[in-house]
Amino acid sequence: MTSRTATTFAPPVMEARRWLEGVTFPPERPLLNVSQAAPVDPPPPELRAAMAEALNDPATHLYGPVLGHPELRAALAETFTAGYGGTVAAENVAITAGCNQAFAAVVAANCTEGDEVLLPVPWYFNHKMWLDMSGVRAVPLGTGADLVPDAEAARALVTPRTRAIALVSPNNPGGVEYPAATLAAFRDLARETGLRLIVDETYRDFDSRDGAPHDLLAGGVDETLVQLYSFSKAYRLTGHRVGAIVADTRLLAEAEKFLDTVAICAPQLGQLAALHGLRHLGPWVAGERTEILTRRAAIEAQMPVLEARGWRLMGVGAYFAYLAHPFDIASDALARDLVREAGVLLLPGTMFRPEGDPAGAREVRIAFANVDADQIATLFARLAAFERPLASPPDSH
Amino acid sequence: MTSRTATTFAPPVMEARRWLEGVTFPPERPLLNVSQAAPVDPPPPELRAAMAEALNDPATHLYGPVLGHPELRAALAETFTAGYGGTVAAENVAITAGCNQAFAAVVAANCTEGDEVLLPVPWYFNHKMWLDMSGVRAVPLGTGADLVPDAEAARALVTPRTRAIALVSPNNPGGVEYPAATLAAFRDLARETGLRLIVDETYRDFDSRDGAPHDLLAGGVDETLVQLYSFSKAYRLTGHRVGAIVADTRLLAEAEKFLDTVAICAPQLGQLAALHGLRHLGPWVAGERTEILTRRAAIEAQMPVLEARGWRLMGVGAYFAYLAHPFDIASDALARDLVREAGVLLLPGTMFRPEGDPAGAREVRIAFANVDADQIATLFARLAAFERPLASPPDSH
Repeated sequence: MTSRTATTFAPPVMEARRWLEGVTFPPERPLLNVSQAAPVDPPPPELRAAMAEALNDPATHLYGPVLGHPELRAALAETFTAGYGGTVAAENVAITAGCNQAFAAVVAANCTEGDEVLLPVPWYFNHKMWLDMSGVRAVPLGTGADLVPDAEAARALVTPRTRAIALVSPNNPGGVEYPAATLAAFRDLARETGLRLIVDETYRDFDSRDGAPHDLLAGGVDETLVQLYSFSKAYRLTGHRVGAIVADTRLLAEAEKFLDTVAICAPQLGQLAALHGLRHLGPWVAGERTEILTRRAAIEAQMPVLEARGWRLMGVGAYFAYLAHPFDIASDALARDLVREAGVLLLPGTMFRPEGDPAGAREVRIAFANVDADQIATLFARLAAFERPLASPPDSH
Repeated sequence: MTSRTATTFAPPVMEARRWLEGVTFPPERPLLNVSQAAPVDPPPPELRAAMAEALNDPATHLYGPVLGHPELRAALAETFTAGYGGTVAAENVAITAGCNQAFAAVVAANCTEGDEVLLPVPWYFNHKMWLDMSGVRAVPLGTGADLVPDAEAARALVTPRTRAIALVSPNNPGGVEYPAATLAAFRDLARETGLRLIVDETYRDFDSRDGAPHDLLAGGVDETLVQLYSFSKAYRLTGHRVGAIVADTRLLAEAEKFLDTVAICAPQLGQLAALHGLRHLGPWVAGERTEILTRRAAIEAQMPVLEARGWRLMGVGAYFAYLAHPFDIASDALARDLVREAGVLLLPGTMFRPEGDPAGAREVRIAFANVDADQIATLFARLAAFERPLASPPDSH
């Protein structure tokens, strides 16, 4: 090993973009890009106007505190307090330049060389990459057919080097919304074993369940739970880089060292936009959620077409549908073929599984936030028309 | 050691801000804050207008490529090609969310646990912090009375674990502009010993020398030199977080893994602002440089007042003056006393030296970018009026 970066793989989203090079997409069959979890429309006009106005304030252009704009920290604390039924103070919130950075800071604040963190598989590849680069072993925690991890299965993987369990709910890539009981069981396990439970809630605004999705915060902030959040999706601010950590102050004082050194502070304009969003865009986000739930319903409605061709929906929710494909070809080769032959860019399951895990070769992820119901119908028609020799069904082996 | 962050200290700039808590500054003696290297004025109106206009482009609000906006990469490559007399291609440039992140990415791409990097002392504390958190030993390289490091002295510190030498020129905290011959000697040493030479040129736009400050790039990009740059100071964009790495493509492919995982991409608006700056604000930046050089001259002109009280100017340039104080009190205690008794916030030398290095106790850094010539006169008058028992001169020991 010659460097930290040498321990891990190239960014999957960038790799997938390179598959587009040299491929032309005819006007009657434009590219359907469902590779990256990002809205493609800009923020609503009201928010853009607020951002333009913020440019008139000199403070927008200056460094801010490492842990974030005080008013944004307070506003997110209020939102979490109201949403989860337990008190969160402004000092329990740190603002980061995106939720990836939030995860990186929390790992740096809790782990060191040779430590271990449990990640359910399929996993979010950026989590795996950061653990690799941190010298921390990502211990794969298998999930069942429903993609939900089991706390008792996790218990068997805990060793003296385990420092944390990192969950993503609603899940990337699986789409599945973890049941409250599952999260509570992981919280109990983490507490018993002295681990941190990191819950990445980047997609919380698109959870199909009404009310609090779990009761982890009901007792207030403690030294077990760490929640991660992103403002990027709800307010369409992906280009402005703003996310958050909600945790105890001792952890945030450690995270501050990391954030100072890799960021100094999150971009001020993104922070001000997020603050405007929290204060004024609740109803607008509710409409966004309805639209995403409509797209999810469109996917569920279209599935019979694909099921007839041997595809299977493993999970759907938030921005993602995770599918098993029927072909006798590995998903990474399939993904490249789909670009050229079907005008579809999606990510193969191989990107979400440990190297050598055969399940990855059978799976693909569709990020559907940037395709509407009509485009979803087109996407499914193209997938249904795509042909390759079929794999033998698993039960025939 | 329980975590990566536990290996290092709290952010010095944030610690210094806490010294202000509970202190009131009377109207006739307002706080002079010379602790952080940042302009306090906003970007020029033309640039703010360009940023407001950019908010109308949907792409401004979306994720961009990990290594940066293609046009900005190309524009900085042209600037470096024109400025240093060697060809830099767009693919040799990566855009980062600030220059701290650039340093962090380069270290991750070149070093791993147990490696060593040489840093001249006094050093930039964020470099030291990142090396600590990376499990990399920061090997202090002493400098002489002129604060310029010596390549032959560095050679004696190179071990089989050494991976890089990191220089900052013009220097933070010392202000000194490293002579071209010094940089050439370090380049030769790095080449001979197979190390990377990292040159952080955050303050290059304020170098007092006309023309290229060194010839390191004259032969084009190679696998020895890595240059780091910040758009924050020249264009007053500190709150927008945009910096750069100029290096060979192999290094940038490694850095891309790190940047994807801690940032995804630099904020788009900051990148567009930097692009506008490179294309249109050359003459404006030249004016900024003149103003900074005027302030530097004001400091040099004021020094006799302080010298009469036993102070000594160790280095001055770019945004910084680095001084030896005359008192029989450690600089970290002195800095706190100066807040309360003189209304001056500066950083003590203890923050720029290894723990236990006695030199740090005798030194202070003044970041003068945000004080004009009149305020510099006030600052020096306050320092000249400040009294404490004097230390014995070093030569009396």
